[in-house]
Formats: sequence, C-alpha cells, structure tokens
Amino acid sequence: MFLTVFFLLVALCTQGGNGKESEEAQRPGHVSVVIVGGTGDLAKKYLWQGFFQLYINQVSSGNTFSFYGGGQSPTEKATPVLFEILKAVSCSKDVSQERCALLKDQFLRLAQYRQLKSLEDYQDLAKHIEQQLQEEGMTEAGRLFYLSVPAFAYADIAEKINSSCRPKSGAWLRVVLEKPFGHDYRSAQVLASQLRSSLTEEEMYRIDHYLGKQVVSKILPFRIQNKNLLDPIWNKHHIERVEIVLKETLDVKGRIAFYDQYGVIRDVLQNHLTEVMTLLTMRLPKNVSRSEEVLGNKLQILSSMLPLGKNQAVIGQYQTYKAEVQQELNKTKDHVSHTPTFAAVLAQIDDAQYEGMPILLISGKMLDERVGYARILFKNDIFCVQNHNNVHCKPKQIVFYFGHGSLQYPAILVSKNLFKPALVDSEWKEVTEHKDINVFGLPISDFYIQTPMEQKEAYAELISHIFFGRKNSFISTENLLASWDLWTPLLSSLASTFPRIYPGGADNADVLDIHLKGKDISYNNEVVIISTDQLGGTSTNGFQVMQGKFRSSEMVSAWAEQLVDKLAADIQEAAEAAIYEGGVFHLALSGGSTPLALFHRLVDHHFTFPWRNTHVWMVDERCVLPTELESNFRSLHDHLLQHVRIPYYNIHPMPVHLNQRLCVEEDGGAQMYEKQLIKLVNSSSFHFVLLGVGYDGHTASLFPGGKVDELGDSLVALTESPSKPHQRMSLTFNVINRARKVALLVMGKGKHELITQLSRVKDNPDKWPVTGVKPTNGNLVWYIDYDALLG
Amino acid sequence: MFLTVFFLLVALCTQGGNGKESEEAQRPGHVSVVIVGGTGDLAKKYLWQGFFQLYINQVSSGNTFSFYGGGQSPTEKATPVLFEILKAVSCSKDVSQERCALLKDQFLRLAQYRQLKSLEDYQDLAKHIEQQLQEEGMTEAGRLFYLSVPAFAYADIAEKINSSCRPKSGAWLRVVLEKPFGHDYRSAQVLASQLRSSLTEEEMYRIDHYLGKQVVSKILPFRIQNKNLLDPIWNKHHIERVEIVLKETLDVKGRIAFYDQYGVIRDVLQNHLTEVMTLLTMRLPKNVSRSEEVLGNKLQILSSMLPLGKNQAVIGQYQTYKAEVQQELNKTKDHVSHTPTFAAVLAQIDDAQYEGMPILLISGKMLDERVGYARILFKNDIFCVQNHNNVHCKPKQIVFYFGHGSLQYPAILVSKNLFKPALVDSEWKEVTEHKDINVFGLPISDFYIQTPMEQKEAYAELISHIFFGRKNSFISTENLLASWDLWTPLLSSLASTFPRIYPGGADNADVLDIHLKGKDISYNNEVVIISTDQLGGTSTNGFQVMQGKFRSSEMVSAWAEQLVDKLAADIQEAAEAAIYEGGVFHLALSGGSTPLALFHRLVDHHFTFPWRNTHVWMVDERCVLPTELESNFRSLHDHLLQHVRIPYYNIHPMPVHLNQRLCVEEDGGAQMYEKQLIKLVNSSSFHFVLLGVGYDGHTASLFPGGKVDELGDSLVALTESPSKPHQRMSLTFNVINRARKVALLVMGKGKHELITQLSRVKDNPDKWPVTGVKPTNGNLVWYIDYDALLG
Repeated sequence: MFLTVFFLLVALCTQGGNGKESEEAQRPGHVSVVIVGGTGDLAKKYLWQGFFQLYINQVSSGNTFSFYGGGQSPTEKATPVLFEILKAVSCSKDVSQERCALLKDQFLRLAQYRQLKSLEDYQDLAKHIEQQLQEEGMTEAGRLFYLSVPAFAYADIAEKINSSCRPKSGAWLRVVLEKPFGHDYRSAQVLASQLRSSLTEEEMYRIDHYLGKQVVSKILPFRIQNKNLLDPIWNKHHIERVEIVLKETLDVKGRIAFYDQYGVIRDVLQNHLTEVMTLLTMRLPKNVSRSEEVLGNKLQILSSMLPLGKNQAVIGQYQTYKAEVQQELNKTKDHVSHTPTFAAVLAQIDDAQYEGMPILLISGKMLDERVGYARILFKNDIFCVQNHNNVHCKPKQIVFYFGHGSLQYPAILVSKNLFKPALVDSEWKEVTEHKDINVFGLPISDFYIQTPMEQKEAYAELISHIFFGRKNSFISTENLLASWDLWTPLLSSLASTFPRIYPGGADNADVLDIHLKGKDISYNNEVVIISTDQLGGTSTNGFQVMQGKFRSSEMVSAWAEQLVDKLAADIQEAAEAAIYEGGVFHLALSGGSTPLALFHRLVDHHFTFPWRNTHVWMVDERCVLPTELESNFRSLHDHLLQHVRIPYYNIHPMPVHLNQRLCVEEDGGAQMYEKQLIKLVNSSSFHFVLLGVGYDGHTASLFPGGKVDELGDSLVALTESPSKPHQRMSLTFNVINRARKVALLVMGKGKHELITQLSRVKDNPDKWPVTGVKPTNGNLVWYIDYDALLG
Repeated sequence: MFLTVFFLLVALCTQGGNGKESEEAQRPGHVSVVIVGGTGDLAKKYLWQGFFQLYINQVSSGNTFSFYGGGQSPTEKATPVLFEILKAVSCSKDVSQERCALLKDQFLRLAQYRQLKSLEDYQDLAKHIEQQLQEEGMTEAGRLFYLSVPAFAYADIAEKINSSCRPKSGAWLRVVLEKPFGHDYRSAQVLASQLRSSLTEEEMYRIDHYLGKQVVSKILPFRIQNKNLLDPIWNKHHIERVEIVLKETLDVKGRIAFYDQYGVIRDVLQNHLTEVMTLLTMRLPKNVSRSEEVLGNKLQILSSMLPLGKNQAVIGQYQTYKAEVQQELNKTKDHVSHTPTFAAVLAQIDDAQYEGMPILLISGKMLDERVGYARILFKNDIFCVQNHNNVHCKPKQIVFYFGHGSLQYPAILVSKNLFKPALVDSEWKEVTEHKDINVFGLPISDFYIQTPMEQKEAYAELISHIFFGRKNSFISTENLLASWDLWTPLLSSLASTFPRIYPGGADNADVLDIHLKGKDISYNNEVVIISTDQLGGTSTNGFQVMQGKFRSSEMVSAWAEQLVDKLAADIQEAAEAAIYEGGVFHLALSGGSTPLALFHRLVDHHFTFPWRNTHVWMVDERCVLPTELESNFRSLHDHLLQHVRIPYYNIHPMPVHLNQRLCVEEDGGAQMYEKQLIKLVNSSSFHFVLLGVGYDGHTASLFPGGKVDELGDSLVALTESPSKPHQRMSLTFNVINRARKVALLVMGKGKHELITQLSRVKDNPDKWPVTGVKPTNGNLVWYIDYDALLG
C-alpha cells in the first residue's frame, strides 16, 4: 500500500522550514508520530493539520517522519476514513501550490492507520517501527504519541506504550495528553500517579491549547520586552483590576453528556483562564525558554493564590440548559442540574506585589458575543483640572485580545496614553489602519495595536513545541495539581449552589453583572427568578443572631458565618472601649483552627481595627519551633498578624524556644511570659481572652486530669497534652479568670455532643477544664454556632 | 446720641429666634460685642450682618446686647462710616418687613463706634461697659471681641483685652481671630505663645470660614447619619481617591502686597482644604457636639498624615502675576516671584483605613471656573458582562458641593447607583427637579441631591457658634500647629521651586493636569515654557549616577535622590540573586538617619522586593528600650518593617533588653545574637551589610579608640560610644568583613570634610574605624552623594 512507502527526504532541498526553530539542537533522525484517536474530531480538525505543518517545516531539517493514526476500528475500515481526513490538510500561503501538492503527496505516503486496541497492537506497532528503521538504515530520533482519546483511557494506553513502545536508548519518547486531567484534586492526583508509573515527567506533554494561541504565547515576551515601562506599574498600586474573559455565544447542545459532568469552571477556568492568569502575574523568568524556571515561577504564583471559596464566585446556567439535559440524558421533567454554564470568579494573589488586586476570571456559554481577552485596567492616575474630556483623562489599559469579538483578529492593545510598546516579535506588525471599531467602549484609534502577520493555529504551534521538546508551553504535574488545589475547594463549596438562570444572548442584559466587594463577589442585581421550579435549590438563610444563656453565662448563637461576624464586631467594640479608656487593648488569642475564620474576618472587614494600640498575647502554645506549621503562633502569624499593621513590640509569642531547646522547665519560659504579662497588662487583667474548647472539654492547654489546682498562683505554666505534641505552654485560670471579657468559641457539628454534655455537667475543672472558666469580675460569653448547638 | 441708648428687650415678645439653638444652656444676661476693625472690609461685608442675624435670633432669648465697632480712627470721623455699614444689614425672608424695620432700628440703637487704639481706649471701653451694666442693673453674660485686623496686631490687642477688658468672674470672654495664623510652624508657634500669655485656649476662637459653610458643616452629620452604609466602603479598599478642590476665576490684582507673601498653599490649602480633609477622614466622634472629641479626632488625623515633600506637590503661577507683582510692589522687570497661585498636593494618611488612598488638595486662581467641592470617587466595583453602558457601570461618587460651578448652589450629591442617603437635616431638602446640568461629566439626574432650604452665610453661622461657645467649629492651637507641622516642610522644600506658568482661564487647557504616581505627583505634560525669562528658576538636573574608585574600592556617586534609588536597586538585585541561589537573603542594616531615605525608597517603590525570604539583622543598636525613639530598631521598624510584608521570624532585633535591664554583660545579649547569627546565616556571611560612617569615622558602633582588636573572635560585642547613649551593641569586623557585599552610605555636605580626610588616610581602624571595613571575600562599595563628595 502506498501509505506505507517511506521516503528519504534528506536530499530534498527546498525553501521551506522555520529558520528559528531549526536552530535548536535536536538529534536528527527518524521520528514516529502516533495519534491515538487519529480519526477523532480533534485529530480531524486540528492535529493532522498541525503535524502536516510540522512536516513542511522540518522536511529539510535532516529528520525523517512516519505518521500513524491509531484507533479502535479495524484497519481496513478506518484507513479510508483517515485518508479522507489527510486529504483535507492544507499549506500556509507562503508555500507555492506546486510545492504544496508535492509535500502533501509525501505526507500522505508517510501516514498510515493502525488499529491500536490490545497490547499486541502496540507491540506490533513497535515491531513495525523498528523493522522500518532497520530496513531503511535510519537512526531513531524519537516517538511521539498524541493521546486524543477520553481521559479514562490514558493510564491504560500509557502502560502499553511503556511496556512495548519505548524507543531504544538515545531516542526520546513523548506522550501528549489532552484535558480533562481529572475533575478535581484527588482524581487528578490518581491519574497523575497512574501515569507516573508508566511515564517520566519529562515524557509527558499535557496540552492546554490556550498556551498555543499566538497572543497568549506572547504575554511573557511582551512583559519582558516592555519590562522597564511595566515594572513601575505592574502592581497593586497601579492596576485597578485584571479581567480574563472568554465569552461564547454557543450552547452545549449535543455535548451534554460530557459537559454536565464538568461545567464551565472545570472546562475553561481551571485550565485556560488560570494559565493566562499565571502568565500575567508570574515573576518574569530570567530565561523564557528555560522551562524549569518558567514552570517554577508559575507554580509560585499558583501557590500564593488566596483560597477560593463560594464568596469568590457566582455561577449561572442558561435557561434552556435544563431541557437539554433532560433530553440528552433522558431525565424526567423534575431533574435539575447544578452544572454552571457561566461563572465569574474573583482570584487574588497573596503577595506584596499584587495583594488586594482583583483578578476576574469569567466565562460562559450563550452570552452576547464570542470573544476572549485578558485586560489589565490601570487606575486612573490623572486628575484633569480643567478639560475632563482630554484623551489622557481616559482609562488606561493593556489588552491581550485572543480573537473574535469586535476586533476579529488576535492582537495586543496598549492605550496610547500609557506607552508605546516595543514590537513583541519580528513576525508581528503594528496595525495602523483603524476602521471604525470600538473595544470596551473606546475607538481602537486610542490604542497601539500589534497583531501577528500571519494567524497560526494553536495546535500547530504546540505540536512544533512538542517536537522541539519545549516543555514551558505545557502543564507539569506539579502545576496541574497546584491548579486543582486552588479550584477544588471552590467546586466543592459550589456543589449545592444553584446557578442563576439567564435567558441567553442579548436578553441577558445585566442579569450577569458582577459586584466586587473587597475579597468577595456577588451578582450586582437581585435575583430574577425566571421559572419558579428552580426555587428548590436555593437555601433559606433567614436566621438571625440569637442571644441566650448557656451554663448560666451569656450565649450568642448563629450560623457559623454570622457568629464569626458578631464575635469580630464584639472584639472591635471591646478594643475601642479599652483604648478610649486607657489607650491600650490587651487581647489573648487561642490556637487551633476554630479562630481562623475570625482572623480572616478581622483582616478582610475590620479596616478600622485599632491594631496600633492592640497587644496580642497567646492563650497557649505547642512546644514546637514558631516557624513550624503546628505552632499556634505560626498560624496566628500567617492568618492574622502578617496582614495587619500591628507594631512588632505589640506581638507576644510564648517563649517556648529558649537556649536552642523547647519548653525546658529550667529555661523559665513560662515565668518569663508571666513577668512580661505582669509588666504590661494592668492588674494582669486582659481586656479580651478568646478561648476554644476541645472534644475532651479542655480549654487553653489545660487538659482533663491536668491537676489545674497544682499550678498554684502562676499565671503561665508548662502543661501536658494527651495528644501530640505533648508539651504545651498555657495561660492558667489564675489569669484567664482575671480578664474583663472571655469569649468561648465553639463551632461545628462535631462539637454538638460536647455542648450537650456541657449543658448538663456541674463545674469540675479537673474533668471538664472548660468549666473552670469563671471570670471573677469579668464577663464570659459563649459563642456557639447552630451546628454545635443544634447538631 | 441715639446710638448709645440701651433698650431692655426681655419683654419684647416675638416669633423670632432659632428654636434649636436657644435650647442650649447659656447664662442669660448682657452681651457686649466688640468688632475691632469694625469698619473694615470683612466687617462691612459679613460681620455686622452676622451679628444682626444673631441679634434677631436671640432678641427674645433673655439676653441683651450692645455692639461696638472699634478702630483706629477718631470717633467723630468713623461713626457715620459705621452707621452707613449698619444701615445695609438685612433680615432673612422669614422675618416680616415690619418686624425687620423694628429690629433694625433697635440694632442701630445698640451699636456705637469707639476708637480702640491705646490701652486707655480699651480701659475706657471697659469702664463704659461696666457703667452701662450698673446703670441698667443688668447681669453680664459675656464679652465677645472679634479681631478683624491684620494678624500682626493680635498679640498687642489680646494683651490690652487681658489687662483691661476682662469681665467680672462668671461672665465669659471670647476673642475671635481671623487667619492668617502665622505663615509657617515657627511663626504660628510664636503667635500662639504670645496669645496664650493673654488668653486661655478656652477664650480663643480661631475662625476658618469654610467651617461655617453649610455643606462643610454637614460633612460629619452626613457621615454619621449614613454610617451603616458608609462604614463598609469608607476606606482604601473602596475609595479610588478623594479630591478637595477650590477653583477660582479671579486673579489677585490689588492684593499682591498680601498675597505675594503667602501664596495659594498658605491662603487656601493649609486651612480651608485641610479642614475639609480632616472632616472627611477623621474618626467619627461619639458625640458630634463634644468639641474636645471632635478636635481630638481631627488632631489624630493630622498627626497621622504622611509627610509632604516636594514630590507630593506641583505649583503654578498665572502668567500675568509677574507683571502685577512688578507693578504693585514696585519691582524691576527682572524681578521673579516664586509665589504659587495654583497648587495641587497629594496627601496620604498613614493608617490602616486610608493607607495609600490618594487625597488631592487643589486650588488656584485664574482657572476656568469658580467652584468648590470635595469629591469621594469610589473604585469601580462592577463588572458589566454584557452592556457596558448600564447606569450601574458608571462611576460612583459622593460630592460635597460647596457652591458655584455648574450647580450654582451648595449641595450633597450621592450617585444613585451607590445608595440613597438619609436627609442630613430637617432644614435641608431633596432636589427632585433636574435641569439639564452636568457635574463631572454626568447628568445631575444620576445623583440623589440634598440642598439647604435656605442658603446661609458662613460668617453668620460661625457667629452663632461663637455666641453659644461651640468650639468644635473653630481651630484649636494644637490643631493649628499640627496643620503647620504638616505644611511647613512642604513650603520650605518648594521655596526654590519655580512654579509652572499658566496662561489663565480656558487657555490653561491641560497645562495643569496632574499625574499621580504612587505617593508622588507631577504635572502630566512636559513643561511648556511660555516666556524664556522664566528659565532662571529651573534647576538643571542633568547629572547621572557616576561610578569610580574611593579608597581603592568601588564608588557610586550621584545626587542624594539618585544615589538612594541606585542603592535600593542594588539591594534588590542582591536579594534576588541570593534567593535564586539559596532561597534566602540575609541583610544587616545600620541605624541612624542616613538610611531612612533608603527605607522609604524600598517601601514606596520596590513592590516586588522579596521580603518573604529576607532576614533583617541589625548592624548595631543603642542600649535603650526598643520602643524608644532613639532605638535603631524602632526607627527601622517605623520606617521599613511596619510597611512591608516580612514574616515576624525574619526580624532580628539585637537583644539589648534582657532580664528587665539594658546591655548587662552577664545577660549575654551579644553572645545570644551571635549564636542566632551563626545558626541562621550560612558561614556567618551576610549577603548584604549596610553601613554608615560618623563624623569621627566610626562605623557600626565601632568607635575611634575602641580597641577593636581586643574584641577577639566575637561577632557581636558590647561597645562604648563617646556620645549618648554610651552603651551600644554592635557587629564586629569579624562578621562585617565576612559579608558578600558591604555598602557604605555617606550623604550630606556635613560629611564632605570627612570624605576628604578619608581619601588620604591609611588604614587605621583604631583611629578611623571605617578603614577597618575590608571584606575578605566580598565586595565593598562606597555610596557617596555629590554633597559629601564635592562639598
């Protein structure tokens, strides 16, 4: 068959080939390309065309090729199908018609279909390749497997490749994978570890086709080339916000079976938009082609993202989606899907450069236009004394325009009142003819615009990168997991949220408009219920904060969020009162995870909290280094102190680490803390002490059976915990009960049983240490959430 | 003469009087009002009218009045002049014509002119008052002196009042002063202390008529009444910027003799605009009529302003001003005045609520329109997914519109897409009829608008406050000095700056537009030189950073500002290199004032400095408590550490305070620091050590004759300084010379002699300790500014 005839092309001398790429060193030789799923949609639409492009570019580089389309169908059935696909490939404009015909003919001869189902099929393929190599006397350069198959098949195929298709040493193996790479952190991890048992990290190429888009791939080069101009403004002080948007007009009809499992966040935000975000915000690599550095810097940004919770997202679903689901999945009329077809997410980076800068990631189906862009909107830093309509009074922005929309071509736009950027690439040109087009409400003549001279397909670009082993345009396992680590908690927290229904297209009007409120977002308009049967999904949130009595002390109860809000407000009130009275507020805080929500509330919403006059003390500490994750101080530091302007001297960690050792009685750490406390805190009476309570009834680090009465008059003591780390330092009841106000915070269903017990038992500090909390002249308030109170 | 006839008005029963004001308790009785300068411009235009208003309102309150216009002229000459002025006073609309005629007649009878020149004149006045009181059998309520005279006369008049015009005990004395209250901090302080020798703080009423403007006086009530809505957004996170603007169309022709001494900053910004700024940003008082609290909260804001330097201001002068000066002051053609007639200043508040929020204070003569307003522009927190022209996509703002401009009336405007504010006052109304007017480019129908039902003169309002002893609308000595403390350094630093010349009126176009760059501002456009003879005032700033050798080490030299920029950049480069290599950067910093500019540069411009991986160590410390102002750590803390996100554990203050005592050998502080250093810093080799050098050649805290060689192998030592505080802790050369890079920063003309000497002397660490800095394997760089280098 003519498809199996090989051809030695080394001698063929042509003008073709991309000069720049061929410069990079590759061991020349024979390359076998295998597209598993070679007659599928993706292969048909992009992959074969991409490999043909590669072939044209490399035909005179010293490499030879053979191409295999693999699939489940028997060869005789699939061969003509593949042949039809291959006949459709085309050359770029710069290739003459004559030469194109020749190259296409060669390409067709070099390609064949092979059934790739069983292990034997893979073994046969390997045998075939080796036989050909031997027959033609060729050195092997490498083998490229492109897995264009559903993700569930990856592990199995990877195993077969590993066991039977590895090239002899010296030649490379590259296996290309298409998303989805799991649907959450756990599944991504499982898949990753399955793959790792067959393939090395070096051998895996996870594709995100966004990284092949011409404009996306120029984000880093643009940032580097304009570094001097961008450096002073590329930060929270100058950037108003970043918008990364992919709007689509189509619905998902016909793809529901897949889509309903994933939704827009998994489909677009977790991968494409996240990649764009990292490119925009990552530290610039010293060397953009050093993939280790590029991927490392991306990982750094991913790791410093603030967690995404349900307050950082809104979701929507186009109105007819429900009916489409019922139809395509054969569901009854009362079936309701929570899958979002629209999502807007507010991401923020927790570092000095970007802290507080809103990054909006937005995508949806059935919107008013098809467009994709990343827009950096700068703060308006011009005050126009007289003429408010001056061009320099207008907003300044940089837009990476991926394509479509009003512009219709990929481009990088920079406001003329910002700066004139350097041309990113010799293959790009400046647009100087401005048709009467508006982008974001501004005429495009307001911008410097660059666009590629020739539009290239993302897949062709990426295929070329794979061929040259440039891993910086692909997703490493580490980065993939970091991205899932960011998105998974959001996906879980949204699982039971019902998306807002939107009519689709222009009718959406302002239904999906978004309101940014500090670190949270919400829809800007009150909910518009389009069909009443959607109501089932909304939760009633009508409960208010409730006041009552618990163990004959005051009790405040509410749902967790409201409870924390109330406690934070009460602490601020106490702080203001204390400072009004005496100029200083002494606050003692407990460790553990319960207060974290409180710390976040204080950081994110209490901008007027008088930290300058507040001293922060610790209720207890574990005997570990203060930098260890287990340390109460570390947690307090990372979640609270690091985010507020509190003077260094007002921070009082417990001295558990003295003379290079931990909590040794003779080092006198407890006495030292006691002295400090006596010296600074008037009558050793804290204004506010925040306590928690453990499942065993312990509070501070005072545990059941800890013989609290043996601590004598000391205010601070070394204690012993039944759980690790055993050694602790703790305030004693002597000082806790001198406080003006003590708050006991109890949250979560897990504490319900304890709360029930505590409501019955008598005071018995040795058995139930928390019952020893009895402020002499102060006030004890229990803050118990409904979960703990009602179970 | 009829003017001296007194009239007992108690029995007169009328409808007049402002109900609300009369509620406040005042001892009823006779009030003597004395306007010193009673026939002057201000008195003629506002004061007599204001006192007539007071008279109308109080006529039925149980008080009686007599009014005296005082002045330098003899009585017979000035009496008819005063009479003409008094005849011109008018009633408000709500007083019937008949009653008005009656009241005016009474008012005229109660007023008389008196010459008030010599001490005898004042003694005579006092005698006269007492005689009248006795004759009419009246109790005295108080005496009100309104000094409407040039400020240089204040002290003298105050003394005369004090020595001869004090009422008998039980009655009050109130002396009203008009600005200017000095022209800088020192002169204001001198004036204040002169006045304090005659008057108590309680007795002085410093007027800023802006505080009597209806809209300005409603700023606090507005903030209080809308507290719940404003609290979440009244902070740096939501406010884009604050603009406080007073634009005038007039020039200062005819007033040059006064104006040229003051200029726009002293005339408008230091007082009016500063007052508005404090009202907008001060902590809300619990009780708005408790003046102690109001003034205290204002003081707090004034004290937390970031210092104003010349990078926080731009100044201008209208083109014809120069000729006016030459003419009115009889100057020659080459006389050049630096007095600004336009200024824009960027103020910032250094606290958690407002940190980084730009506050623009802007005023100028000869601009395009007459208008005054304070505008709070909120960040655009709406993302419009589809329709960008939605009303809620528009900017949100609150505008306190003082008057004039396109609106023509005083008003408070709130964007409709923000919230509907509560009516501030029952005497205010909502504007619902919207004529076709635009404010800030938006139709006024976009706003909720409130305006007073009746427009009232600021002076009348303030006169009423004085009568009731409401001090919260006046400027206390403390607050005045705090304001001058803020403005004086700016005025000094601008003294030699030549203002940009602007043509005036609409011709200004965008010449005065302002560019905000972080904490700095500048004109947005390159300078346009209108007449070449202005060039004399501009400084040539063409010097670049220069590289060379000093004491056979590398030297970098430049003007102070560029030098600090370069050093900051070099430190960041060193930090990045160290972290790239080993993940951590160890930086040791010196105390003293020289590095402060460096710290500010790092804080304000190096947003990407890798603080998270930086450890900050101290080169030396004074043996004082770390919270004392003298402490090197305190200075490092306040100027650097408090403003960057550096982990608590990465901060290493020297342990000078142990066991409740300072630098006692046996406490082993130096050894403790040494241990810490050895443990954390690889080979005890800092990546970067910043040193300074004292006039005596000392560096770190290693002083001449300090027998450096006796310190042995220790890395940290207690040392003795010739100047106080004597005891120090210091790194030794053992560790300094192990550093990778040592920078020696020397700045200021005062160091020129030292630098000259150092360039000649041989190494002799005992005599010139700084010559002992010789890094073994590292690099020493001298950073010397041109002042120190060239003298």
